[in-house]
Amino acid sequence: MTVRLYDYLPSGNGYKVRLALTRLGVPFTLIERDITQGETRTPEFLALNPNGRIPLVVLEDGRRLAESNAILCYFAEGTDLLPADPYDKALVLQWLFFEQYSHEPYIATLRFWLQHLGLDETRAAQLPWRRRQGYAALGVMEGHLAGNAFFVGGRFTIADIALYAYTHVAHEAEYDLSGYPAVRAWLDRVAAEPGHVPIDARPGA
Amino acid sequence: MTVRLYDYLPSGNGYKVRLALTRLGVPFTLIERDITQGETRTPEFLALNPNGRIPLVVLEDGRRLAESNAILCYFAEGTDLLPADPYDKALVLQWLFFEQYSHEPYIATLRFWLQHLGLDETRAAQLPWRRRQGYAALGVMEGHLAGNAFFVGGRFTIADIALYAYTHVAHEAEYDLSGYPAVRAWLDRVAAEPGHVPIDARPGA
Repeated sequence: MTVRLYDYLPSGNGYKVRLALTRLGVPFTLIERDITQGETRTPEFLALNPNGRIPLVVLEDGRRLAESNAILCYFAEGTDLLPADPYDKALVLQWLFFEQYSHEPYIATLRFWLQHLGLDETRAAQLPWRRRQGYAALGVMEGHLAGNAFFVGGRFTIADIALYAYTHVAHEAEYDLSGYPAVRAWLDRVAAEPGHVPIDARPGA
Repeated sequence: MTVRLYDYLPSGNGYKVRLALTRLGVPFTLIERDITQGETRTPEFLALNPNGRIPLVVLEDGRRLAESNAILCYFAEGTDLLPADPYDKALVLQWLFFEQYSHEPYIATLRFWLQHLGLDETRAAQLPWRRRQGYAALGVMEGHLAGNAFFVGGRFTIADIALYAYTHVAHEAEYDLSGYPAVRAWLDRVAAEPGHVPIDARPGA
C-alpha cells in the first residue's frame, strides 16, 4: 500500500505535502476530506488525528504523522530538499516555524475567511491586526529574498515549499504583492522548479 | 565566547531554550530584552532578528538562530532529548508544530494579554474563541498523555520541554487544569527531570 495523504485540495498546508512528495517521486493516494463540511471532526477522522486537521499522512506500515511541516521534514530527510549541515538544517526549521507562527495565521487564515467563512463580528474585529501581521511577514521574506535566491543555503529546500504554499495565493486573501518584488521573483523561481504542480492538481490526474 | 541567548525572562518560548541548554549542560550568557518596552523592535535588535522576536541565539561563531523550537532541535540533535529514529524524530516535530500552531497562540497569548497588555476591544472580541482553542489543545494533550508518560517514545524529549513551557503557567492565562489530570501528572514528571529550572531563574544565579 502506498502512502495515504488525507487532505483538502485548496489547503496550502496540504499542498506543501503534495509538492514535496511529487518532487521526491514518492507515490501517494489522495484521500479528500472537506474541512468546510466538518469532515476532519468526525469520530472516524479524530481517531486518525485527534487534533482534527489535515494534512495527515498514513505511512505504508500504518503509522500516522500530522502537521504539514513535520511531514515535510520526514520525507525530505536525506534528500536535496533538506540540508545535511546541522546549522543549515536548523535554519530550514527556523523558517518552517516562522511560516506556521508568523505567516500562516495571517495569510492562510484571511484567505480561508474571505474565500469560505465570510466575516462575522469576531473575525471582522481581527482583520486589521491580521492584515498588519501578514504584511509584516511578507516584509521579513522580502528583506531576506532581496539578497538570497532561496531561503536557506542558496538552493531550493522545504523552507521554500512551506512558504510558497500560501504566499502564492496571498491575492486570494486580498494581499497586494506589488511592493514585494523579491518575493514575486522567488515565487517564479519556485514555480519553475522540476516536479512543480499547481495547488488544485490531483496526483496522477 | 559562549552561546548568547537574547531572551525575556517571563517568556515561555525563551524558557524552552533555557530548560534545554541547562539540561544539556551548554553554558550560555543571558541577554535580556524587555518585549513590553519595544526592546525587540529596535534597529539594533532587528539587525539580529528581522522578525523582531526573542528567543534568539547567537552561536560561538556569531551565527544566529531564531524560533524557539528550531533552537531546541539544533541543540538537541544527537542527544537523548531528540530520538535518532526518523519516525520518532518526526513525531517530536509534529508536537513542536502543534505547540506553535494549536497551543501557543491560545495559551501563551492569553497569558500575555491578561498579565501584561490587558483587554482592549479587539482582544476582548477574540477571548472566547481563543479560550475554546486553548482548551481544545489541552484536550489533545490530555488524550495523548492518558496513555503515554511523555509525548514521544516513552521518554523525555524536546517535545515535552516545548509543551511544558506555557502549559505549566496556563493558570496565569486563567486556564483551569482540574479536568486534565494526565496533563497535571505529566507537568509533575517534567518538573522532576534532572536539570530542571524554574521559568524565572537566571543562569548561574
